[in-house]
Amino acid sequence: MSEVIIAGISQLPVGEYWDRSLRELAVTAIRLALADSGEIQPDALFIGNIHAPVLSDQAHLGALISDYAGLTGIEAVTLESGGASGGAALRMGYLAVASGAADAVLVLGVEKFTDQIGPSVEAATATLTDSDYEAVHGLTPTSQAALVMQRYLHEFDVPHEAFAGFAVTAHENGALNENAMFRSRITAEAYQNASIVCHPLNLLDIAPNADGAAALVLTRPELLPKEALFPQVNIVGSSMANDRLALHDRLDLLSFDAARLSVQQACRQAGIRPGEVDFFELHDAYTIFAALSLEAAGFAEPGQGWKLAREGKIKRDGLIPISTFGGLKARGNPGGAAGVYQAVEAVLQLRGQAGANQVASAQYAMIQCLGGAAATAVTHILKSDSL
Amino acid sequence: MSEVIIAGISQLPVGEYWDRSLRELAVTAIRLALADSGEIQPDALFIGNIHAPVLSDQAHLGALISDYAGLTGIEAVTLESGGASGGAALRMGYLAVASGAADAVLVLGVEKFTDQIGPSVEAATATLTDSDYEAVHGLTPTSQAALVMQRYLHEFDVPHEAFAGFAVTAHENGALNENAMFRSRITAEAYQNASIVCHPLNLLDIAPNADGAAALVLTRPELLPKEALFPQVNIVGSSMANDRLALHDRLDLLSFDAARLSVQQACRQAGIRPGEVDFFELHDAYTIFAALSLEAAGFAEPGQGWKLAREGKIKRDGLIPISTFGGLKARGNPGGAAGVYQAVEAVLQLRGQAGANQVASAQYAMIQCLGGAAATAVTHILKSDSL
Repeated sequence: MSEVIIAGISQLPVGEYWDRSLRELAVTAIRLALADSGEIQPDALFIGNIHAPVLSDQAHLGALISDYAGLTGIEAVTLESGGASGGAALRMGYLAVASGAADAVLVLGVEKFTDQIGPSVEAATATLTDSDYEAVHGLTPTSQAALVMQRYLHEFDVPHEAFAGFAVTAHENGALNENAMFRSRITAEAYQNASIVCHPLNLLDIAPNADGAAALVLTRPELLPKEALFPQVNIVGSSMANDRLALHDRLDLLSFDAARLSVQQACRQAGIRPGEVDFFELHDAYTIFAALSLEAAGFAEPGQGWKLAREGKIKRDGLIPISTFGGLKARGNPGGAAGVYQAVEAVLQLRGQAGANQVASAQYAMIQCLGGAAATAVTHILKSDSL
Repeated sequence: MSEVIIAGISQLPVGEYWDRSLRELAVTAIRLALADSGEIQPDALFIGNIHAPVLSDQAHLGALISDYAGLTGIEAVTLESGGASGGAALRMGYLAVASGAADAVLVLGVEKFTDQIGPSVEAATATLTDSDYEAVHGLTPTSQAALVMQRYLHEFDVPHEAFAGFAVTAHENGALNENAMFRSRITAEAYQNASIVCHPLNLLDIAPNADGAAALVLTRPELLPKEALFPQVNIVGSSMANDRLALHDRLDLLSFDAARLSVQQACRQAGIRPGEVDFFELHDAYTIFAALSLEAAGFAEPGQGWKLAREGKIKRDGLIPISTFGGLKARGNPGGAAGVYQAVEAVLQLRGQAGANQVASAQYAMIQCLGGAAATAVTHILKSDSL
């Protein structure tokens, strides 16, 4: 396989765009990413999106968005794997360049929740569970996460307030990120007093669904313009793995097996151990997922992940920084775009362009997005050549 | 890129499965394809599907179907490009094997229309048009095709009955195919007298939406079991291209530019001219699409494609056989599975297993599926090593 680099990035502030359409968000992100790359001409567009067919009555985004971006003729397709859709789009873009089928590709993540309101958004997100056996009984991704968290609290005899550190750290980092939806710091007391949404999950355990668009330009190093300004960021590991979708099918509710497998495979390809990464953009759609992802990646033993948060080891100067721009919790969770935001944020870190959010001397990044309760996990290892 | 072969195929009869779920259709097709391949172990599953999130309230098919197929742990993702979704899944599977990222992959096309009835199906298919500017005015894929046909009849001064040959030939071939939805022959008179659905399209211009599932196993030749029984079928060309989605954005309503481009690119990769293929499985969702696809591929000048049907040149013993198992028209149009059915049918021809539908001495196949009015086109060239 050819070497693949990320040559351009863009992101729109995550939030609620009541006055801008899905296509407008998408095209804006594409133009910014192409500009950042020095106007590389893409051969293909891989789109991570979950909800457009249901919330915007719009399928077939490949043709729609490539048209409006002025890229008629190129290859374009939507990838969907629930919340892991953005990571899936990144992986397909990676394979297209690595195989030699494309010289340069765009990877776009775009999601628009604000085309609908209220119950229809809940119904749309419930399609990410097993519809016939879970959603039919009222299960949604949030109530699924609540069941997982309840089991964790019971199994490991951990109090709910043990998870405060995840929300507090995410908001600390989000407060510095101008693209974050929530830029307010929160305290552990605020976390403990937050309203219950779905027991034991409270409002500050849950990342907000939000609109967003982010894009990447991938190419091979030899095709990069000579005057490229930034340190080169390479994709040195890429893996996607699945677990059983329905919770009742899982062998162990508290083991994110797909996440573990994809970390192992991506690290093997990159030739590093997980412990060698300088930070980890993980899928903290729920605080419990942050803990379980840290455990699956090997940063903590089962039942111990929450301690990394309590001990400050997930802060930007900690043992394993996570959610360095606020994560899904504070930056916002733009559905199928979340995985692309993670990649954009990791590239900013690896280029040394992360400003107030910078992790010192970052050379290796691990990014991972999840679909469902880690029913799908996509993990990438990025490396900067600047150090 | 590595050489890629199709080592296993399966298809379920296309029709209405009121009593079988989407996951059941999918898993059945997967098991049959794996059996046909000699039980190759797949590393990944690429799914072509359009409507499950809307019609079955089920997104995240990758995790659901890999779970139920007993393939937990592998990579699995849904590809969506409207009616071209099956072709897109085949192309991604091809890239995964060609890049070396996977040794063997499953490509699955599955669609289930019968989870809903009536207006909701029309609304679902309308998401394949430009929702904000077309569907909002009542446009559906069928009324879009009607506008294209009306323009063709006007521009080239052709009577509607000139298209009879496409429907008649499709039903002739479908009558011999035990997996076809419609196994009745029809006459040119029946075509002319068929009820108008959306002027000028009548009932026999339009392929029926139907349930179906079909699957392929792709691998590299050196990984094929030694005892493999069938002639080897290679994917020697693969291309995907997009055009403007909305009809009002097209430069020329009667030029399927994405189809032309993808044929040129796929043939260039295969090292052949389009005229060298022995048959052409095209996307005859509407008779007018068959004519325009033949013109885009270079088998007829603009405005002349219908003559190939009238002169019998699209029959199995003609100059360029199309729809050799009945096409979308008579075999049925299983949405995002259609492109995988085309590949299965082409492999049967190239293996010499097409029975009564066999095209004599078939060495090269061209298969092409379209999304919308050729807003997306995916073309593959397959080659048999048996001749």
